[in-house]
Amino acid sequence: MTRDLRALFDPRSVAILGASNDPAKWGHWLARGALKGAERRSVFLVNRNGGEILGLTAYRSLSDLPERPELVVVSVPAAGFEAAVDASLAVGARALVGISAGLGESGAAGRARERAVVERVRSAGAVLLGPNCLGVFDAGSGLDLSSNEVPSGPIGLVSQSGNLALEVGLLAEDLGLGFSRFVSLGNQADLEAAELVEELAGHEPTRLIALYLEDFRDGRAFARAAQAAVEAGKPVVLLAGGGTEASARAARSHTGALVSDLAAVEAACAGAGIERVATPKELVDAAQALLASPAARGRRLAVVADGGGHSVIAADLADAAGLELTPLAAGTRERLAQILPATAATANPVDLAGGGEQDVSSFARTVAVLLGSGEVDAVLLTGYFGGYAVYAEELRPRELEAAEALADAAAESGRPLLVQTMYWQSPAAAALRARGVPVFRDVEGALRGLGALVGQGTETPAGVPGVPDRSEPPLGSAGYWEARDLLAVAGVPFADARRAQGLDEALAAAEELGYPVVLKALGRLHKSEGGGVAVGLAGPAAVEAALSQMASELKPSGYSVERTAPVAEGVELLVGARRDPRFGPVALVGAGGLYAEVLADVRVALAPVSEHHAETLLRSLRAAPLLQGARDRPPLDVAAAARAAAAVSRVAAARPEIDEVEINPLLVTPEGAVGLDARLVLGQEGGEDAG
Amino acid sequence: MTRDLRALFDPRSVAILGASNDPAKWGHWLARGALKGAERRSVFLVNRNGGEILGLTAYRSLSDLPERPELVVVSVPAAGFEAAVDASLAVGARALVGISAGLGESGAAGRARERAVVERVRSAGAVLLGPNCLGVFDAGSGLDLSSNEVPSGPIGLVSQSGNLALEVGLLAEDLGLGFSRFVSLGNQADLEAAELVEELAGHEPTRLIALYLEDFRDGRAFARAAQAAVEAGKPVVLLAGGGTEASARAARSHTGALVSDLAAVEAACAGAGIERVATPKELVDAAQALLASPAARGRRLAVVADGGGHSVIAADLADAAGLELTPLAAGTRERLAQILPATAATANPVDLAGGGEQDVSSFARTVAVLLGSGEVDAVLLTGYFGGYAVYAEELRPRELEAAEALADAAAESGRPLLVQTMYWQSPAAAALRARGVPVFRDVEGALRGLGALVGQGTETPAGVPGVPDRSEPPLGSAGYWEARDLLAVAGVPFADARRAQGLDEALAAAEELGYPVVLKALGRLHKSEGGGVAVGLAGPAAVEAALSQMASELKPSGYSVERTAPVAEGVELLVGARRDPRFGPVALVGAGGLYAEVLADVRVALAPVSEHHAETLLRSLRAAPLLQGARDRPPLDVAAAARAAAAVSRVAAARPEIDEVEINPLLVTPEGAVGLDARLVLGQEGGEDAG
Repeated sequence: MTRDLRALFDPRSVAILGASNDPAKWGHWLARGALKGAERRSVFLVNRNGGEILGLTAYRSLSDLPERPELVVVSVPAAGFEAAVDASLAVGARALVGISAGLGESGAAGRARERAVVERVRSAGAVLLGPNCLGVFDAGSGLDLSSNEVPSGPIGLVSQSGNLALEVGLLAEDLGLGFSRFVSLGNQADLEAAELVEELAGHEPTRLIALYLEDFRDGRAFARAAQAAVEAGKPVVLLAGGGTEASARAARSHTGALVSDLAAVEAACAGAGIERVATPKELVDAAQALLASPAARGRRLAVVADGGGHSVIAADLADAAGLELTPLAAGTRERLAQILPATAATANPVDLAGGGEQDVSSFARTVAVLLGSGEVDAVLLTGYFGGYAVYAEELRPRELEAAEALADAAAESGRPLLVQTMYWQSPAAAALRARGVPVFRDVEGALRGLGALVGQGTETPAGVPGVPDRSEPPLGSAGYWEARDLLAVAGVPFADARRAQGLDEALAAAEELGYPVVLKALGRLHKSEGGGVAVGLAGPAAVEAALSQMASELKPSGYSVERTAPVAEGVELLVGARRDPRFGPVALVGAGGLYAEVLADVRVALAPVSEHHAETLLRSLRAAPLLQGARDRPPLDVAAAARAAAAVSRVAAARPEIDEVEINPLLVTPEGAVGLDARLVLGQEGGEDAG
Repeated sequence: MTRDLRALFDPRSVAILGASNDPAKWGHWLARGALKGAERRSVFLVNRNGGEILGLTAYRSLSDLPERPELVVVSVPAAGFEAAVDASLAVGARALVGISAGLGESGAAGRARERAVVERVRSAGAVLLGPNCLGVFDAGSGLDLSSNEVPSGPIGLVSQSGNLALEVGLLAEDLGLGFSRFVSLGNQADLEAAELVEELAGHEPTRLIALYLEDFRDGRAFARAAQAAVEAGKPVVLLAGGGTEASARAARSHTGALVSDLAAVEAACAGAGIERVATPKELVDAAQALLASPAARGRRLAVVADGGGHSVIAADLADAAGLELTPLAAGTRERLAQILPATAATANPVDLAGGGEQDVSSFARTVAVLLGSGEVDAVLLTGYFGGYAVYAEELRPRELEAAEALADAAAESGRPLLVQTMYWQSPAAAALRARGVPVFRDVEGALRGLGALVGQGTETPAGVPGVPDRSEPPLGSAGYWEARDLLAVAGVPFADARRAQGLDEALAAAEELGYPVVLKALGRLHKSEGGGVAVGLAGPAAVEAALSQMASELKPSGYSVERTAPVAEGVELLVGARRDPRFGPVALVGAGGLYAEVLADVRVALAPVSEHHAETLLRSLRAAPLLQGARDRPPLDVAAAARAAAAVSRVAAARPEIDEVEINPLLVTPEGAVGLDARLVLGQEGGEDAG
């Protein structure tokens, strides 16, 4: 769906329905904002009581307007919302901004009303933003239909929370950043995040797309739009809310959001190349870095400070963030020694040891040597720089010169230089920012920015796979045998097993398979809890004892007798998939068996995944060293595990009725991979389809 | 050592040696600062060239002073330092502040010179701060011998970095905090961190002790002093630098620091009840919370916001920080519903859904209900509060009233209320702070503060054990058998083992122990790497094959034949100890065997540890669920593992020649714990030898 959103962002005429003189009402602030654009477009204030608003005569009704309003902002109580939309469409509005709250977020009845309105909007060829949104801002067109002052700049901001957007705005302003557009999403009844991301990707003044989202709506479409924006050179930074039980409660109540599992969001971000952040501050810190700097082509960092403490703290933090501070080569250290005091530390971190205080230009010479050395992918200058002019005004010119020289060094090298200074509002900091060097107020911020640049330069987005159309009739039941059969047909090898209803059948099966055997009681979701699995049964007596205990304690619907797998020769993994209400099937691989919960070591991806991708995921687990044959063990057949993981993900992707499917454990040995258990959970109605 | 430091913090007279008119020199700023206290004490500026400095006649030499200087600040080049100290002592100085750099941090010769000077200072009964320090500040005595403006307040700051202290000062000022004393430590040649912490613990205006340290000097003394301060009700917040390879390089070069392992610092903090932070911002955020709020008696948190986005983000972050946002009980929700709009979310997070905008007093009523409910240990108010007066000046009086009511609610409940607002400099924010409610500029900061309060209220410091005097002659060698014997004597059970030099002895041993056996090649540090361990050898042929392969590939010095342990019935742990240059022996327990490196799941404590403490450590591992009998496995004998860990820690504590000692794996089963390997590394003087 690509619709023309010009009427939303740059209308020739705009009407504010519910305009007011009362500063306690949104209608007041919307009217004030709209009037700022009165030189560029017709602005009509509408209030059914008429009268004068902000010095203008208010119209009592849309039908009284002298001109068709291309955009109508509806800021009336929920009860009047539908009528207002219909009236707007009747006079030919092309775009609507629904401020009114109390529709879709208030329950099923409200959602039905919302859907019906959207039908009529779409039939009329118009678009609707919201309802339950706070407005829209476009710096280029001078459209200011939000209640707050928004600084101009290169960030296109799409948010499901007005107050969070406000905080992002304040933090951005601190760093000299601003917004090309701001869109408050509200309930996304018509316009969804995906369509707005697509629009911003094509919006020239927008150089970076920032999002706060609780509900991703068509999650795959969103991820595809984000991937396209990233590929077009516009980084996408996402603050996603609602990934925990408590926050999901809040999000549901806030915008009626159908929230996604954190794992699904993570999978979408990895697929699309989205930079994910956890707070408004992180969003702005990441955005500053991504807007100012080239990507870092690796994880090698040099830290520079004048004074040991700052370099020590930055080095500790960088190490914890997985960056590499390797000692510099002798030649580079030599060059640094030539420009720095004898007491300077040149190994990395580089401590100017008063060199900056003696001669502020030594910062730039040091950084130039480091960026040009070929030994590092980025440089972080941290601490005091920017403070010399604060300390003594007469030092200002030289410090500003040094800032220019630092910017020159960064520009020449094509590598990122990030600066953290306690004097983040100083003239030197402003000069650096003006020249495209990001300057952070704290070392956390600098590391966050660096993380974004390293991610951009070293990680290749996995892509956003489509979900195949259903090709098979839905599964009717989801027992153990159905799960095994389904996955076996898809290509997953399982331990040899026989069904048994009672002792005689179990003993016959054991005889056939060969002792020792495994006995499982069926009919429980987690068989291994509560005595549902007995392993190492060495003979008929052991089988009989285990079966009789299971029979009396668990009353199982049946049994499975299985061949003993060589557990000691391998590692137990978990491979599976879960359906997210917005992103559809998400594949997961992780440490399995006993260690699944203890390690909580899982990697995710949008399903279906290729075998190659599954292997990459497996090899990126924390437990990966175990797969590579830790301490004398032969390397395990990771490719076989990856084949199984890919097969499971294909099954989940092809069958929307599957809510969860899991093989845990999947035993991977040097000779292959074999499923030792399988579990399937079907959705209520065959599941909600994701696009 | 408890010395009188009055002459350092409140001297009756002070002399600045190296005073200068040149603002590029420290001597200039020190002189300016000293003169601020001229009404309270005599201030003498000394410069060997005499002349006029800052409008005063400078003395050419200390011996020219009309009065004995109780405190002398030595700001002369390194070459003149010793002579200056001697001259100071000659005229009767009781305290010296050594600004001069280039002594102890410059290498062995400098350290020797420093030591000699300290001897003379101590013989004279004086004290020396530094050298290589930036000075000292005491708000109460009007002593300002540091180069920067320092705001007054309740924080006693001790720092090994001047610039970091400066940043801490700026960040603290942002939040309305200030300093009772600031001490720049420098090289700690005489005065060490421990003595200053002890001093600050007894300094009435100091309510919280903040530290930046690279070198802990007498680490146990430091930890004991910190523990005493904490017990006296003065929280200790520590920013420790140098825990990684790169930062240790920087710290060594910066202050000649002998840096400690992160694990040792962690052990000391847990022992003493120190709140550890990673950045200057975290230090100030934690300090604000600890100064303003009572401790939180548990992890249950309610989040409140007017607007969903902020509550969603705070809930996600709180969950990640291990806080509990459980839904509120029906009665509490009822009470909230009565004071909030119908659309408000009352489950937790609580979203006022415009209730605050309609009536700003509803913030306080909501928070009062929550704090009084008995269902939560703390409340976090996040987002917009503080902004109403910014939005419309006429709302200011009501918002300030609301701030007072919020503070009243917190004070009445005795539970922490923390506020995050994007308007952190607003009048309402200032009013809250004035009433003892901490206000943070970002949600990260609020969570950091909350973490400090929860730590203080829920964690009992483990204590700082003394290290026993050596009672045995030092070990001469540290082979496998020595390690086993040493630990066995201390009470650790090991798998039955026999020495063997060749095949005949190995076969005889295997026969005696019973097949299957384990064969180990000795003489390697990590036996299980490179084929040094063969398990499950079922008969003589298997032993012969394994031994002949080891013989040809590893050329071992000998073999150990061992009884096979029931590995499948238990979990492999690691118990050990390491000697830190500053904190001495540190005990560690963790996941062992194959999973040791993959899980990196280790807990540490200052050694020796009691069996009870060792068990607490084991039960706090991430892998602890495995010990409690995960999924049908019987509970393991954790007490036996704890006995082994305590025994290892006692051995390490009693023998200073031991650098490292480790049992990995220690197999813990339902029936007990048994060591399956042992490793010992002696320090330089005891000789290193692989087991």
